[in-house]
Amino acid sequence: MRLRIETELNYAFAEPTQVIGLVHAASSSDQLIVTESFEIASGASAAIDVGNHGQRRFRSCFCGSELVRYQADIDNGERELLPSAGRQHLWSELPADVLHYLLPSRFCPSDRFQRFAQREFGGAGDGVARVMAILDWISRHVDYVHGVSTAETTAAETFTVRAGVCRDFTHLGITLCRALSIPSRAVGAYALDLNPPDFHAVMEVFLDERWWLVDVTRLAPVEGLVRIAHGRDAADIAFLTTDRPSEMLGQNVSVSRL
Amino acid sequence: MRLRIETELNYAFAEPTQVIGLVHAASSSDQLIVTESFEIASGASAAIDVGNHGQRRFRSCFCGSELVRYQADIDNGERELLPSAGRQHLWSELPADVLHYLLPSRFCPSDRFQRFAQREFGGAGDGVARVMAILDWISRHVDYVHGVSTAETTAAETFTVRAGVCRDFTHLGITLCRALSIPSRAVGAYALDLNPPDFHAVMEVFLDERWWLVDVTRLAPVEGLVRIAHGRDAADIAFLTTDRPSEMLGQNVSVSRL
Amino acid sequence: MRLRIETELNYAFAEPTQVIGLVHAASSSDQLIVTESFEIASGASAAIDVGNHGQRRFRSCFCGSELVRYQADIDNGERELLPSAGRQHLWSELPADVLHYLLPSRFCPSDRFQRFAQREFGGAGDGVARVMAILDWISRHVDYVHGVSTAETTAAETFTVRAGVCRDFTHLGITLCRALSIPSRAVGAYALDLNPPDFHAVMEVFLDERWWLVDVTRLAPVEGLVRIAHGRDAADIAFLTTDRPSEMLGQNVSVSRL
Amino acid sequence: MRLRIETELNYAFAEPTQVIGLVHAASSSDQLIVTESFEIASGASAAIDVGNHGQRRFRSCFCGSELVRYQADIDNGERELLPSAGRQHLWSELPADVLHYLLPSRFCPSDRFQRFAQREFGGAGDGVARVMAILDWISRHVDYVHGVSTAETTAAETFTVRAGVCRDFTHLGITLCRALSIPSRAVGAYALDLNPPDFHAVMEVFLDERWWLVDVTRLAPVEGLVRIAHGRDAADIAFLTTDRPSEMLGQNVSVSRL
Repeated sequence: MRLRIETELNYAFAEPTQVIGLVHAASSSDQLIVTESFEIASGASAAIDVGNHGQRRFRSCFCGSELVRYQADIDNGERELLPSAGRQHLWSELPADVLHYLLPSRFCPSDRFQRFAQREFGGAGDGVARVMAILDWISRHVDYVHGVSTAETTAAETFTVRAGVCRDFTHLGITLCRALSIPSRAVGAYALDLNPPDFHAVMEVFLDERWWLVDVTRLAPVEGLVRIAHGRDAADIAFLTTDRPSEMLGQNVSVSRL
Repeated sequence: MRLRIETELNYAFAEPTQVIGLVHAASSSDQLIVTESFEIASGASAAIDVGNHGQRRFRSCFCGSELVRYQADIDNGERELLPSAGRQHLWSELPADVLHYLLPSRFCPSDRFQRFAQREFGGAGDGVARVMAILDWISRHVDYVHGVSTAETTAAETFTVRAGVCRDFTHLGITLCRALSIPSRAVGAYALDLNPPDFHAVMEVFLDERWWLVDVTRLAPVEGLVRIAHGRDAADIAFLTTDRPSEMLGQNVSVSRL
Repeated sequence: MRLRIETELNYAFAEPTQVIGLVHAASSSDQLIVTESFEIASGASAAIDVGNHGQRRFRSCFCGSELVRYQADIDNGERELLPSAGRQHLWSELPADVLHYLLPSRFCPSDRFQRFAQREFGGAGDGVARVMAILDWISRHVDYVHGVSTAETTAAETFTVRAGVCRDFTHLGITLCRALSIPSRAVGAYALDLNPPDFHAVMEVFLDERWWLVDVTRLAPVEGLVRIAHGRDAADIAFLTTDRPSEMLGQNVSVSRL
Repeated sequence: MRLRIETELNYAFAEPTQVIGLVHAASSSDQLIVTESFEIASGASAAIDVGNHGQRRFRSCFCGSELVRYQADIDNGERELLPSAGRQHLWSELPADVLHYLLPSRFCPSDRFQRFAQREFGGAGDGVARVMAILDWISRHVDYVHGVSTAETTAAETFTVRAGVCRDFTHLGITLCRALSIPSRAVGAYALDLNPPDFHAVMEVFLDERWWLVDVTRLAPVEGLVRIAHGRDAADIAFLTTDRPSEMLGQNVSVSRL
């Protein structure tokens, strides 16, 4: 699938502020960058580095009103979906750089969920079957509701409150996977069909020797997702991290099919 | 049922320390004090006041090694058990002094459980049926395990971790009742058949115009419970509250049938 | 001082919803109700009970759009201010119904603050001097900022974040007082000079055998405060508690000097 | 300085349990492994991988009573101490793999500490001066006390309670550094002069283009520290992570000067 992304971030900074931005589509074999432009209207310089999995990050220093524009045409090719069966690895078989996605993190306290996860999903067959059981459970028990969660909400709180947005669904999915020893991480993404359009949070699980993209909210088709960055949880994939308070003046994300 | 209670608390206080103690059996029509003795070995003076529901509290100032002894023979008569049916009151029908047992409290954040409680127990019939459904759910989903919880553990944490002790079971029971608008409170108690013997935490629910005693852990028979004090949650019913750190030297609680 | 209060609460309820409301000025010797009217526009019936300290609470069942109007003229007489000196009581001297205002509560985890409070304020002289030291510390270290706290924020979080609104200032004040064994409670109030006008949260401390009203934010003069209700913390003094979600359509609070 | 390390971990596993272990001294230019032995008494096989900074991790599957022995002689050479002055980097100057040590993590919610850190340490001069001011503040305000914290305790809780152990001191140090944009990470270590001997937690800060080791507790001399592993906080550097509960039968850590 070919997708066009158009993003505008307009923020005000009262004083010179260091920023880290994650708006570039990751560049990888299952997500080709056809064309792309990135612009900071004020002309502030930005350094862009490339991480593993093709993740790109810009760093700059902003002051006053700043407008960031990113546009790209992306070719997702024929992205493979999570297959109907797939083996979960033993810890000893996992690549070393996957291991920390087994551990609890700030918003994903998976260590506290071991009893629940084992009892509810422990008998669900192979790795894919467990992930599917977790996704089903979340969609039956958690309501998609704006305004009940904040940027501080953890998966444990969402598990209690039974409501949240994409970030909360993703954290709960990650947490339950990790509680069953399935490596899982958060992915910031652009997504087709989101209403209203916005940055999206989804997860990846590691099964059968590779990462698979999964939308825990089931709002967007997997082939309509464009990965920006991955990390342990939302703390790692914020589209804008700043060292001082900032004020949003406007923000537009648009994703359309070409 | 007639019960004999023998309690010894032996604590060390490095400096003069204010204490509030809850060790006296509450004195009420369904729990008659047949004989009773209360003694502070050091001779420190204590003031005892009587609260509603017959709750008695002592206050003193302790220093050095202090030994408190309480003994009583109690006649529980024929304590009524929660009946098989019983109506839940509208808020407008409740006595004014019952209302705050509808509110969330420190260890019982009932406001966060409304979706879960409504979905899981909302269709369970009258008030008693809902309480029974809650008790059943807790005993199927939460394991009685020492060492997984602390004095700071909330019902939300127990709901996630799915394990705890009497205090945690009670907090979860109270929380789920309040989330369904059933007034509920924590009760510190002596209990028959506890192994090892210790202070016990149970709950009371308000249905059909009165409070009913319920042991969420199902460890002790209701007629084998002797109420000490009630409150919103464990913070209110600690057997010893002090204004400085203290060190436990020894503690014995014994409850036997006469 | 004579004050005129005008309050309008306009809320929408999707289904029949039980409500507890706290909008009436408390009726007491230092706060005389000169004239007063209370009206529910839909004609829904309401039961009003009177608690201790003159606190009045209404209960009703609301559905659809509901408008509550409360108007009163209040005579605060010559309300006494916290004197320049005043003794803190021993626990053993306190009236029994004051004791639970020594205990930690949901938003005021005073037990965790004992080391800090003792080190920072322990040497500050008598009870009033300690309260004044706490108020000074808060006003030097905590910024009054909207949007950094929520209805779930505890005093421990405010202590870390160093910013909040009246509710947060009050919780921190209460917490620090209790950590020093000074009974302290939350008071919902109408307040002169608040900008924008809104319900206000202040605290009361118990010294020299009585409660004293204190505005931790220092935004309103004590003689310009009209008490509505008191409780352990904000959970107890919400102007509207409901058993189902509601939606605010409009809300006006006006306090003026007569 | 030359150091001899002897470690024995003896744990019981009720069923086959996956484990990740961090007991090997990191192998790096400022920490040479002179001799070394690693043994699992049961003969269970273990895979060892080497991460960046020379960190080594073993993975195995344990069952029944398992005894792990690690011994090593280490030459720390002349380890450089944090110099008396040193520049803090702009975000844009930092190596890409250092950036996530600026972000809040599970036990180090640095985002909530920005006001406090800026006000208390913001004026302290260059990077080293700020780190020194943080270390001084912690040693003046936090008591080293066993039993007040658990494996769930965050830096925010330690900041409130003002007491904890090495793990808590380290988390607070890391949190305050990150709140000032100084990259900081947790390091699991062996340490000379610890009493009783145990695994130790210290921190590293990134200044002047490199990481510097710092013991926030000031219990051990920096040249007497042997790094095992680093990570965002204690969740990443546990000496034993397991996918099922385990029971400690015995544990010995000994560090001596050669």
